[in-house]
Parts: sequence; C-alpha cells; structure tokens
Amino acid sequence: MVDLFGGNPNNTPTSVLDSDDRVQLLDTTLRDGEQAPGISLTPDEKADIARALDRADVPYIEAGSACTGEGERETIRKVTSLGLDATVTSFARGVKRDVDLALDCDVDGVTIVVPGSDKHIERKVGTTHDEVVEDTEELVAYAKDHGLWVEVIGEDGSRADLDFLERLMRAAYDAGADRLCYADTVGHAGPETTYSYVARLADIGPTSTHTHDDLGLGMTNVYASLAAGADLVHATVNGIGERAGNVALEEVAIALSHCYGVETAKLDELYELAQKVAMATGVPLPPNKAVVGENAFTHESGIHTDGTLKDDTMYEPYPPETVGRERRLVLGKHAGRAGVRAALEEHGVDVSEEELAAVVERVKALGDRGKRVTDADLLAIAEDVQGRERDRRVELVDLTAASGGGTPTASVRLRVDDEERVASGTGSGPVDAAVEAVRSALGPDADAQLDSYHVDAITGGTDAVVTVEVEMSRGDHSVTVAASDADITRASVDAMVNALDRLLQAEAEESKPAPQADD
Amino acid sequence: MVDLFGGNPNNTPTSVLDSDDRVQLLDTTLRDGEQAPGISLTPDEKADIARALDRADVPYIEAGSACTGEGERETIRKVTSLGLDATVTSFARGVKRDVDLALDCDVDGVTIVVPGSDKHIERKVGTTHDEVVEDTEELVAYAKDHGLWVEVIGEDGSRADLDFLERLMRAAYDAGADRLCYADTVGHAGPETTYSYVARLADIGPTSTHTHDDLGLGMTNVYASLAAGADLVHATVNGIGERAGNVALEEVAIALSHCYGVETAKLDELYELAQKVAMATGVPLPPNKAVVGENAFTHESGIHTDGTLKDDTMYEPYPPETVGRERRLVLGKHAGRAGVRAALEEHGVDVSEEELAAVVERVKALGDRGKRVTDADLLAIAEDVQGRERDRRVELVDLTAASGGGTPTASVRLRVDDEERVASGTGSGPVDAAVEAVRSALGPDADAQLDSYHVDAITGGTDAVVTVEVEMSRGDHSVTVAASDADITRASVDAMVNALDRLLQAEAEESKPAPQADD
Repeated sequence: MVDLFGGNPNNTPTSVLDSDDRVQLLDTTLRDGEQAPGISLTPDEKADIARALDRADVPYIEAGSACTGEGERETIRKVTSLGLDATVTSFARGVKRDVDLALDCDVDGVTIVVPGSDKHIERKVGTTHDEVVEDTEELVAYAKDHGLWVEVIGEDGSRADLDFLERLMRAAYDAGADRLCYADTVGHAGPETTYSYVARLADIGPTSTHTHDDLGLGMTNVYASLAAGADLVHATVNGIGERAGNVALEEVAIALSHCYGVETAKLDELYELAQKVAMATGVPLPPNKAVVGENAFTHESGIHTDGTLKDDTMYEPYPPETVGRERRLVLGKHAGRAGVRAALEEHGVDVSEEELAAVVERVKALGDRGKRVTDADLLAIAEDVQGRERDRRVELVDLTAASGGGTPTASVRLRVDDEERVASGTGSGPVDAAVEAVRSALGPDADAQLDSYHVDAITGGTDAVVTVEVEMSRGDHSVTVAASDADITRASVDAMVNALDRLLQAEAEESKPAPQADD
Repeated sequence: MVDLFGGNPNNTPTSVLDSDDRVQLLDTTLRDGEQAPGISLTPDEKADIARALDRADVPYIEAGSACTGEGERETIRKVTSLGLDATVTSFARGVKRDVDLALDCDVDGVTIVVPGSDKHIERKVGTTHDEVVEDTEELVAYAKDHGLWVEVIGEDGSRADLDFLERLMRAAYDAGADRLCYADTVGHAGPETTYSYVARLADIGPTSTHTHDDLGLGMTNVYASLAAGADLVHATVNGIGERAGNVALEEVAIALSHCYGVETAKLDELYELAQKVAMATGVPLPPNKAVVGENAFTHESGIHTDGTLKDDTMYEPYPPETVGRERRLVLGKHAGRAGVRAALEEHGVDVSEEELAAVVERVKALGDRGKRVTDADLLAIAEDVQGRERDRRVELVDLTAASGGGTPTASVRLRVDDEERVASGTGSGPVDAAVEAVRSALGPDADAQLDSYHVDAITGGTDAVVTVEVEMSRGDHSVTVAASDADITRASVDAMVNALDRLLQAEAEESKPAPQADD
C-alpha cells in the first residue's frame, strides 16, 4: 500500500496500486442490485447471471439474502448447485436464524451485516453497543464452526463512531471472521472519510469496501479505499442497487486494468454480462454508461469522426474489443465531411466533392431540427443532391389494423415495382399483425432479417408521437430506418416498409453495371 | 490547496477543500453534451436549458460551437440575447475564423481548443509543436483584444507530453488567457495522472478541469483535480456527452456541498434542470442516477423501508428536498410489514396483524415472479385476504380499435355498476382513440386526471409484451396501475379502466360509514 497525492517536490504522486497488487471483486448484483425498487429476478435469471459472472472470473458472488423468503432460498440453492468456481455467499442479518437459513441453501460463505452506527444500533435495532459486539462474536464463531467463509459488515459504517467500529471489527476478526467490510450504506462519505475508516479496519485484517453512488462518489470512494489498504471491492453489474445504486463492477474492472494493470475480471465478458443484467432487470443500459452503454464507443461529431477515421485511438482510451464491443460512427448535426463520405461509401454511393458538401449541409440541417440521421435519411439526401430518381421498389399504399379484443388483424396494400399487392395477417397485437401482412404481401422479397426493433420509452400523454427505429438486413446489406407517428402501428409499418425498400434497391443497384462519374 | 491522503500517524487525511474554498462550474451540456450521438437540441430547447442553468446559479454556460453551422450560431445568439447572469461562451477550434464566428454570436467568452498530445498535433492536425504554441499565443491575444473571457484547452491533454503541455499553457497564459484547462478528452487518465498534470498547470495560473467517464473515473478525476489546485469544473447535466459522457453537474454540486460545504449551484433547482435536459435530449434519466434518478430517494426493501419509517435519515445521506425532490416508499419482493402497513393505510385499508402477514406474503410472492407491485395489486391482495367482495364499479366488456390509415377510431363497451355503456372515439392513434371512447362512455364519472402514462422502451421483436403504467387521480385519491399485453391499445385501456374503477371505488368507500374491525 502506498499513499496517493503524497506531494513530492515534482508533484508526481506515487501510484495507489502496482500491477502485482491483488484486488478482488465481490459481485452483489443478485442481492444489493436486486434490492433496487422495481427489480425482481427469477431463479433462472439469477442462475444465468451467476454463470455469466463465473465466466468473467468474478471470484465472489453474493446470490441473495436467504432470510427474504422461501422463493429467494430456492433461488440461492439454484445458484449454489451450479458448481461454479466462485465462492457463493448469502447476505445475513446478525441473527443465528439468518445464518441457519443461509446454511440451508448450501452457500460457501456469508456476509453478516450488524448495525455499525449509533443511529442503526439505537434507533433501528434498539440494542446497545456492547450487545452488538457480543452477538457478532458469537455469530461469527457459529458461522466459522459451520465451515463458512465469513465477512462482517458494520452497517452504516461511514456514519459510525470510528472507535466503536474498530472495536466491533477487531472482535469479529478475533472471533474468526475472514474479512471486515467497510460499508458506506447510505452513500454519505467523501473520500477523506472513506480513507480514514478503511485505513483503521485494514490495520486489523483483510478489508473489503462497499460503496454507494448517492453523491456520485461510488468509484472515488473505491479508489480511496484501495489507497487505504482495502483489497476486495463490492460492486454490481451496471451499478444497479438501492437508491442511486452501487459502484459498477465493469467500471472498477476496466479502471483498475487500464490505470494500474491490475486485473480483476475477464474484461471481454463484461458487455454480455451487462446486457444480460439489463434484460433480466428491465433496467435499460443508459446510452452514456461507461464501458457498456450504447454510445460508449460511438462517434458522431465531425472532429471526433474525422480523427477516428485517421487513427482509431484518437478519441478512445482503449479499444472497444477489450470489453467485447465494436466501434460505431453515426451521423447527426455535428457531422463532418469525412464521416459522411465514409457512411455513403458503406452504402456504395460515390459523390463528388461538391455533392459531398451539399449532403453534409443537409445532414447537419436535419440534425439541427433535433432528428437522428438514419441510413435511409442519408440515402434520400444523396439521391436528391445527385438528382437521381429514386427507384422506389416497395411503397405502402394503405394499412388497416383492428385490435382490442379477439384476434388482432391487419391488412396492407403495397405497390411492389408496378404491381399492387394486398394481404392480411394476424399477430399477438396490431403491430405484429401488420408486420405479418407486409411479409405475406411481399412473399420471398421480404426474406429479410429484423435485426432490431426499438421504441423509445413513451412518457407524457396517450397522444404522444412514437418513434420506431428498425434495423433490417438481407444478405450483406443492412439499413436503419426510423419513422414517427402518434399511431405505433403506422410508425412500425412505415419503418419496415422503407427498410425493405432500401434493401431491395441496394440489391438491384448491385446487379447493374457500375455508374459513371458523370452519371 | 492541501494534500489528500498525506498519511499522518492517525491515518486522518486533511480535507481537499475547506468550506471557504471557491469552486465554480462551467456547464457544457449545450456543447459537449449535445455532441453525444443522437442528441440535437433546437434553439428553444437550448434557451430553455440555459435559463434553467442560470436560475441554478451556474456561472459559466458554454452555449455551443459557433463553427458548427449557421443553425448553431442562431442558437448561440438566442442564448446570448437572454440577458443571463452567467458568462456565455462558445467552443472554438484554434483558428481565427472560429473566434470570429463566436464574436459574431455576441458571446462573453470562448474556450479555445488546441491540440495538446503528439497524436493530435502530428496525426490529426498535421502541424508541429512550435506552430501550435505560436498560433495559440496569437489567437489568445486576438480574442483578448476583442474583449472576450478566454480559456485554453490542450485537447487530449491527459495523453500529452507534460513538458510540452506546460510550455503551451504558459505561452497561452502569458498571452493573456484567463484560464487554462486540463482536458482528459478521451477519458483515459487515472487520478494520479490527473493530479500531476493539473498540479503543473495550476502552478501557472487559474486552472479548469474537463473530465470524461470512459473508465467510470469522471468524478474521481475531478476530485484529484481539485486536490491539485483546479478551481473550475466542466460538467454536463445528467452527465451526457461524447461516448460515456462527462462528469455530471448535479453530482459535482451535491458532492462538494455535502462533503465540504462548498456551494457551486442552487441545489434545489437541480431536479427540474435534469428533467428538462432529459426531455429535450430524449435521453431518459436512468432510475439509479445519483441525485436525479427516479429511485435516488425510493425505498423498497423491507429493512430499508422499516428503517426509513422510523427515521427519515436512516437510509439517506441527505434529505431529498435538498435537491428539490420527495421520498417514495414502494413495494416489491423485499417488502416488509412496516412498508406494507404504511401503503395500506395510505389507501384507507385497515388490516389485523394476521391479515398483514398474509398480505406481506402475497406481495413478496408477486415480487418473486418479477413483477412490480402497484397500488392496484396491493388492494386486490388485501381484498382477497380479507375476503371482501370487490365492489367493482367499472369493467371493460370489449374493445375494438381500428387504425393504420384514415382517422384512428375505437369503441368500447363498459359495465358501469349494473349498466352497460357503449361509446366510440377518435384520436391521434388507436390508444388515444380508445381512451377517448372510455371517457365518452363514462361521462362525468371519468372526471379523473391522467397524471402519468408510461410505456417502457420496447426492444426485441414486434410481438414483445408491452407494459403500460398509469397514475390517475380524482380529488384527493391517486392510484397507480400497470397492465401488460402484446397489444399496446389493450394494455393502455386495461390500465386506465382499472385505475378509474379504483378511484370511483375509493370515493364510494368514503361515503359509507366506517367499517367495523370484525367486518
């Protein structure tokens, strides 16, 4: 352990960690993460996430809190029966019954939480400091007697009297606890407090740190904890958890790897893990979430896109592949020439310098109006600038959808090349029925893959305009199209029909001879 | 400036800041925030956000980047013409044209960005170190001659040769720059690097810090920057920005206030500001976002709810009112007795101890199945446990909705008390039409307010099950109800009809004599 910001004459602080230091992770997604309001994971989901954590080499997995109920215990049993490499633990309040319930789930270890602050001791639990110490000693001994790995948390530790917390933790350690955990239960501490508290516990024995993000300091306090001698970090995937959540596991893993060469998990498993947790919890990944958000490796602005096209590392701290991802360049109001040219080339469209300038101008104008610029928008602009007649192959003439009761039904009338085609379809809802009708009308021409279908969350009134974005592919071609309407069915069909039209058009273009520069 | 983690014999580091230290914020939501992929703000939206920032007493507002285009310049002019207290600035690349364009927008200041790292100097811009220094000196003098407040950023500063960066910044300062800005443009630095770089710049003159969150270290690096002597922090509302975004303005503001008593903004304006930015950008607030996320002051788990009911401060670092918000208690799989009793009381339902235990059991079971537990769910469980006949007042008998082309139309058949009512309606889409039909069928009974209508983002296929959650109120009563269906129209109408039924029922209950305990 070394001190940070020690202030030597050159203002060059020594590093908090060296690459041969060992830091470990305890994942508490399945316990503290699941305590977040509105989140509840099924046994299968928990098992699936636990397997993904194990694949990522996370050494400690807190599977739940055995005292919560029989459903939760079955879930924990499911995780303990997977035969994972990780040490699987349960949370337990400081009572014998909770440890017994955990044992009943066949866990490898327990994290025993006992009140740490005066507020928790006196007002929440209604006991005394002496009793807490005695009960903890007894319970630790009991758990150790039953062969468990034991970590003790002083709840609300960051607001505890530090002398008492030290006494409590020393007693727990002397009674056989494997680890002591500093917990900033309510996300109250600054890094100075964290440092002083952790340093005192680390003088006693191996110390863990459990931080929350209420002040946005979850990671800063991990850093202060490591500086003070902690060597195990509690974290959750995507940072989900009580209130503002816990420190994010993927952020701790990448930060320690990138800054210090300290490896705590298999980084290239992190993205899949994040997506799994987002799906299971129903909490979507924020686009600007570090490491795993949609935009973490996406570049839109002209300066950034231009720089990235010259050198991948220009605007990225580490390659996206490190965490199992890919780089994306997209267009919008900050688009520049280099980015627009690259996007057009991807769709096989050549433009002169003059035409490029005009396309860029129009892409920016569309962006200025607050619009995302999809592939379809870009291609339509290029056609217009080049005075090319759009060789439209599929067009929606009309759409009718009926739903509410009975079987959702829809019909469409399409113009395909010069032929009109009518078809109907049924589905699980009007959108699904309409899509079926489109497929049926197009027949083999509709042999395209719907790679993604996305509707932004709708908030406001029932008359809000809904934007549907689809990504479709056929053979080597792929295209994104967005459409907006107050009617979600209409927007969905518009987007899909336009995407299919673009795909068929791209195919037709390819079979033609290459166009001349002066076309 | 004091050193952190100086490691005195008691392990008590001195504080990075004292309450009489001054730290200021420069908001770059309208520039770096807007550069995030998919985000584009209209002039009105930018003006609206600028006014909200000014109300929150943020002293520097970067309104945009004047070189982006004429649309952007009009927007910046709109912001500069608002007569705000804040210093309004534009971003400018290190060329005279950009400063002229900024002047043309009547800004108070500019942040001039010049290449800082070898990568940017040699590979992106294709110039030399000497030229960068000379051009910067000239441009700073030019901008100062035109009466501007001038801040100079060395782009990609965290990967720059520190000796060169120091030379560049000293030249800029000597040429008249008001501020020097350390920029971790690509979110690459750890806190040690940040500290050493900022410390060197702060030796020259007033220093700002601009951090990104690619490693989850955005805030940690702000902290290291302040420790090293920076006194102005670049931040964006909700942390939006390029890739993983910038450090979040609301987090810096609350952290410095809570930990050090250093006030940088009016905290009780932060929530409104955050919502405004979320609405305008279309990037929703993550539920677990510190300070401004939906769950930041929401408690679900039994232990936390019980503790909070005993003492508000039990599981919160600071009162929600500090940042213009309110506390919420919700139910789910971790529900406990205290929380369930409190929720039932809110709806005027008294239960015995035995009944309470049964209700808690069923609430947890519902939570176990991965469901959110709404008011309607809780009331239905209580009715069932108490063997009360549900006095259903409004029921949906059938629903038909037609849409796709023409005017979206819907009809409903409702049973209201013992009477059947049929009505039709039109709207902007099938959901809107169906809601209109319900209102028409109910007449004055439907005189209820739709307080919120929310549909989670839909990702996956067109046959995904959609969950609609509504909150409705009538007089003093308010109720939340969720309904799920593959058909969004059906789910919306189910949720609204159930909510209306609950509201009318609550009203009927109130006018009855109070029930006896043995009822």
